[in-house]
Amino acid sequence: MSKALLHPDAEAIDLSAVLDALRDPIRRAIVLMVSEEGEKRCSSFLHCATKTNLTYHVARLREAGVVRVRAEGAARIVALRREELDARFPGLLDAVLNGARQDPSLPRLAEPA
Amino acid sequence: MSKALLHPDAEAIDLSAVLDALRDPIRRAIVLMVSEEGEKRCSSFLHCATKTNLTYHVARLREAGVVRVRAEGAARIVALRREELDARFPGLLDAVLNGARQDPSLPRLAEPA
Repeated sequence: MSKALLHPDAEAIDLSAVLDALRDPIRRAIVLMVSEEGEKRCSSFLHCATKTNLTYHVARLREAGVVRVRAEGAARIVALRREELDARFPGLLDAVLNGARQDPSLPRLAEPA
Repeated sequence: MSKALLHPDAEAIDLSAVLDALRDPIRRAIVLMVSEEGEKRCSSFLHCATKTNLTYHVARLREAGVVRVRAEGAARIVALRREELDARFPGLLDAVLNGARQDPSLPRLAEPA
């Protein structure tokens, strides 16, 4: 697909949108995974949700400015916008990720190797 | 009213619920106000929203564990659960409040004296 994926500029990232994106545990699981392991294909998150739901969740994160998504052939690659988020809302991402790490109900992040 | 107001125990405060509570700018304005000025009557927030909407927003904050509400005669007094929130999700509240402070669209907090 060549359809452009819209991303908010760093200075336009909105606190309400970021909190709204991060309030969902599946979205926090995705963010935690790309935070800890670097950029990932969307298909890496299939243990968290169905493909349709993943497409939705990744789009919510992208539209809020939490992740950047690019196409690589047929695959979508998801990367965390950490520097931009940290610059705009210092400490917010780490606080949420620390909370996510301690949440036993979060979808498992690391697939068996 | 003598109806008991339910509050989650500190250890039961849920990250999804807290982020959901804080994603609304009116609720962030309320939290910022009690953070900076100490406990407040619900009526102190009437510049932010109608009475009906305030009742709803304060209940959302209370149910999420962000504020504690008590009756004092006919008035409802709202206090921030800062220590419990900071213990459970270190840095989260400050990061959100710092973002709120920089938001020019947030309802005005300080009433003219």
